[in-house]
Amino acid sequence: MMNYRMTAYILGSIAVITAALMTVPFIMTFGFREDYASTTFAFGLTIVLLLAVGIPCIVKKPQNTHITSSCGFVTVALAWILMSIVGAIPLCASGVIPNFVDCFFEMVSGFTTTGATIMTNIEGAPNSMLFWRSMTHWIGGMGILVFVVALLPKSNPAVVHLMKAEVPGPEFGKLVSKLRFTARILYCIYLALTVLEVVLLVASPKMTLFDAVVHSMSTAGTGGFSNKNLSVGYFNDVYIDIVITVFMMLFATNFNVFYFVLIGHVSAALRNEELRTMFIIFGFATLAITLSLTLNGIYENFWVSLRYAAFQTASLMSTTGFATADFNNWPTLCHILLLGVMFVGGSAGSTAGGLKVSRIIIGAKSSFVSMKKAYSPRGVFTVKLDGRPVSDDLRLSVANYFVAYFFITVISLILISLAEPTLPPSLQAADSGWFVENFSAVATCINNVGPGLGSFGPMYNFAHMTYFSKLVLCFDMLAGRLEIVPMLLLFYPKAWVPAK
Amino acid sequence: MMNYRMTAYILGSIAVITAALMTVPFIMTFGFREDYASTTFAFGLTIVLLLAVGIPCIVKKPQNTHITSSCGFVTVALAWILMSIVGAIPLCASGVIPNFVDCFFEMVSGFTTTGATIMTNIEGAPNSMLFWRSMTHWIGGMGILVFVVALLPKSNPAVVHLMKAEVPGPEFGKLVSKLRFTARILYCIYLALTVLEVVLLVASPKMTLFDAVVHSMSTAGTGGFSNKNLSVGYFNDVYIDIVITVFMMLFATNFNVFYFVLIGHVSAALRNEELRTMFIIFGFATLAITLSLTLNGIYENFWVSLRYAAFQTASLMSTTGFATADFNNWPTLCHILLLGVMFVGGSAGSTAGGLKVSRIIIGAKSSFVSMKKAYSPRGVFTVKLDGRPVSDDLRLSVANYFVAYFFITVISLILISLAEPTLPPSLQAADSGWFVENFSAVATCINNVGPGLGSFGPMYNFAHMTYFSKLVLCFDMLAGRLEIVPMLLLFYPKAWVPAK
Repeated sequence: MMNYRMTAYILGSIAVITAALMTVPFIMTFGFREDYASTTFAFGLTIVLLLAVGIPCIVKKPQNTHITSSCGFVTVALAWILMSIVGAIPLCASGVIPNFVDCFFEMVSGFTTTGATIMTNIEGAPNSMLFWRSMTHWIGGMGILVFVVALLPKSNPAVVHLMKAEVPGPEFGKLVSKLRFTARILYCIYLALTVLEVVLLVASPKMTLFDAVVHSMSTAGTGGFSNKNLSVGYFNDVYIDIVITVFMMLFATNFNVFYFVLIGHVSAALRNEELRTMFIIFGFATLAITLSLTLNGIYENFWVSLRYAAFQTASLMSTTGFATADFNNWPTLCHILLLGVMFVGGSAGSTAGGLKVSRIIIGAKSSFVSMKKAYSPRGVFTVKLDGRPVSDDLRLSVANYFVAYFFITVISLILISLAEPTLPPSLQAADSGWFVENFSAVATCINNVGPGLGSFGPMYNFAHMTYFSKLVLCFDMLAGRLEIVPMLLLFYPKAWVPAK
Repeated sequence: MMNYRMTAYILGSIAVITAALMTVPFIMTFGFREDYASTTFAFGLTIVLLLAVGIPCIVKKPQNTHITSSCGFVTVALAWILMSIVGAIPLCASGVIPNFVDCFFEMVSGFTTTGATIMTNIEGAPNSMLFWRSMTHWIGGMGILVFVVALLPKSNPAVVHLMKAEVPGPEFGKLVSKLRFTARILYCIYLALTVLEVVLLVASPKMTLFDAVVHSMSTAGTGGFSNKNLSVGYFNDVYIDIVITVFMMLFATNFNVFYFVLIGHVSAALRNEELRTMFIIFGFATLAITLSLTLNGIYENFWVSLRYAAFQTASLMSTTGFATADFNNWPTLCHILLLGVMFVGGSAGSTAGGLKVSRIIIGAKSSFVSMKKAYSPRGVFTVKLDGRPVSDDLRLSVANYFVAYFFITVISLILISLAEPTLPPSLQAADSGWFVENFSAVATCINNVGPGLGSFGPMYNFAHMTYFSKLVLCFDMLAGRLEIVPMLLLFYPKAWVPAK
C-alpha cells in the first residue's frame, strides 16, 4: 500500500539533492573550456528541471509520514528509475550520446554501479560528462536514499524500509541504534576511503587529478566507468594496478568491518566470517587464474600473470569491472572462474554487487545441513554465521533468493536471445558465439559488473545490442542492485493500492 | 551408520539379479552369430563372477534387517557404482571398448539413463552389446532397488529408504500402503508401456524388431542410447518420430498419473499440477523453437520445423537425448531453450532426470511468496501444490536442492575445464568454444540427458575427453540420477560408522 504523498516527498528530496550534486559537473563545464558548448546548457537545463519539479514536492512536509515496507520498496525502485532518466538528460541534450535509450542504459549502468557502457569513444567525450558518469557510481554505490537518510534532521522510523531496500545483503544490520547516525557513519567512511584513494592515485606521475578522482569514484562505487577507452590498462602501471586492486577489495568489504576497526574492535572485525571467506575465494581464484595464465604462456612469467590475475579477479569479484587486460583471450578456465566470482560478488553491506558472500556461505551451509538431515532425519541442525544461529526464515529467504536470481538470469537470457544483432565488421574478431556472449552480458549486468565476454568484452561495449535487449539489461542491473524485490513489486498491482 | 551385513545382502541380491538380466544378451550372442566370438565369453565370465560373489552374500538372511536412512542411501550409491563396474566388464573383456574408464563411463551413462557415449562407431559394435547398453537404461530408469523391492517376498519396513533414494522427486509418495505393491505396480506399468512402444515401432517398415526393442528400452528409461550412429535420425520417418516423441513425454510423466488412470480416477490424474505445468513448458518451448527455426529458415517450412522442434524438445526435456537433427546448427535461442528444458527435466516419480517440474513449481512459488512476504512482512503465506500446502521444511529442502545442484554444476565445470583436450581434426568443425562445450557437457550429464553442444553435440560423442573429466562427469551423472544426497554421503565419514 502506497502513501503517495510521502513517496512524492521522498522523490522530491532526491530531485533536489540530485540537482545539488549535478552542480559539480555543471561548474566543471566552465573550467574545462570544453568543445561542446552545449554541455553547460545540458546540465543547467536538467538542474532547473529538477528544482522545478522537486521543490513543490518538498515545500510542505506530509502530515502522515508513515510508510509500509512495500511502499518503501516501491519508492526506492521508482527513485532509481527516475534518477536514471534524469541523469540521462544531460548526456542526451548535449549530444554526447544521441539516443535516449542509450543514455538511459548508460545511467542505469552508472547508478547501479555496473559500468557497462554503450560509448564507443570515451576519450572523445567532454570531461564534465565523464565526471558525471563516474559520479553516478559514487552516488549509487552507497545509495541515494542512504544519503537522504544521512541528511535528515531527525530519525524517522519509516526510513528503515528505504535503507533496507538499498543496503545489499541478506540481513539489514544497523550499526548504531539510530539509523540517521548509521547512514552518516557509512557516508563518512565512504568519503574518507575515496579521498584516500585519490591521494594515493594522484601520487603516481601517470595520473592527473582528474583521472584520479574519476577512477576513485568508480572504484568506491565498485562501478567501473573509466575516462579512458582502455580502462585502467591505459596507464599500464604496476603501482596504479596495486592501489586499485586493494581499494576494489576494500570497497567490497562490509562497512561494518571498518566501523569496528574505527571504534577499536579490531579483533571483532577480523573474526568476521564473510570477510575471511571473501578473501579465501579471492585468493583461490587469483591463484588458479595465475597458474592457468602461466602454464598457457599468456604472459612472460608468474609475476606478470599474478599482477593481471589479481587485478581482474578483484575487479570482477568486487563487481567493479575495470580492465587491465583483454581477458577475452585468456583460457576457458579463467572465463569460468571470472564468471564464478562475478556471481559470488562482494560482501553484504558493501558497495559491491553479485549474490554476496554471506548468501553463498548461508546457502552452502544450508545445503550441507539438508544433507545431514537426510543422514539423520530426526537430528536437529542449525546453520551458523559468525557463531550465531541463522533462522529458518533467513535460510529460506536466502535459498529463494538464489532461485529467483537464476530464474531472472534464464528469462533474461531467453529475452535477449530473441534477436541476435548483426555484428559490425569491427567486432567480428571478438565473436565468441552468441551463447557465451549473451550469458556473459546477463551475468555482468545482473551482478553489476560491467564487461562481459566476446563482443561485450572489456575492450568492447554494449552499443551493438538491440534497444529491447538494452532495456532487459536495464531491468537486470536494477534488479541486481536493489536485490530483486523492489523491482518485482513494481509489477505487483496490490503494491500500488493507496494507503487509507 | 551402516549395517554392513544388510548392505552386503542387498548388494548380493543385486549381483544375482544382474546376472539373471545379463543372460538375455548372453543368449543373444549365440543367436546373432556375431563376429566377436569374445562376446559370449565376456558375458559368460561376468555372469559367473556375479554369481560367485553374489550367492555367498545372500545364502543367509541377516538377523538384523534394520537399516537407517543413511545406510539405505549409501547402499544405493554403492549399488549403482558396483553395477556400473560390473556392467562394464563385458564391454571391456570383449574388446568392444578397449579402455576400462571408457567402459565405466558408458555404463554409468547407461544405468543413470544419460545416454552420453564414448563410442565412435556404434553400428560396428556387436548387437548383444548394443542390446546390453540399452537394457541398462531400462534397468536404471525405474531403478534396480525398486526392482529388488518388487521381488521381495514380503514388505520390509527398512526398504523405504532404498526406494526413497532411487525414486526421483522432492517427496516420496507411496502409491498404496505396501511398498512391495507400489514397486510391483510401477514395474508393471513400466513394462506395459515399453511393450506398447515396441509394438507401435515395429509396425513401421523401417524398423526391425531389434531396432524397436533397443529404442523402446532407451525411451522407457529416458536414456537415449541408439544402435545407430545417427540416433533416431537414421530412420528419418515421421511416424517413428511421432511415436517416440509421445513416449518420451509419457515416460517423463509421474507414474502415479498412470496408476490413477488405471484405477479409473481420470479426472484426478488430469488435475495433477505437475503434469499440466510440464506440458505447458513443453508446448511453449516447442513453439518458440519452431518459430525460431522457421524464421531463420533452417528447415523448409513451419511443419518440418515443428517436427524437429517437438522431437528435440521432448528428447531433452524428458532427458532422453535421442536426436533427429544436429541442433548444433540451430540458432542460439534454441540452444538456450534446450539447455533450459534440460534443467527443468521431467516429472517426479518418472524415469526422467533434471531438477524435476515439481521442484521448479515449488521453487518458483516459494520465491514468489518470499516477494509477498517483503510486501507484507507480517502476512502468513503458504505455498500450495495440487491444492495442498507445502511445508516450510519441503520448501527449504527444494530451494537447497537448487543451490546444491548449481554448486555441483559450477564445481564440475571448473574441474573439467582444468585441462582442455586437443580436438582431433575431425571434430574441429564442431568447435563452439570450450565454455559452451564444457557447460553443455556438465549440464547434459547432471541432468542425465546425453548429447551436449559443439564437439559433444548429438552427432559427436565424449571420446575425446580426458579420463579425469570423464570421471567427474560419471560423478555428475550419478549425482543427477540419485538426486545428490546418496553420492555426497559417500564422502561423509560418519555415514560409514558401523551400527552397533
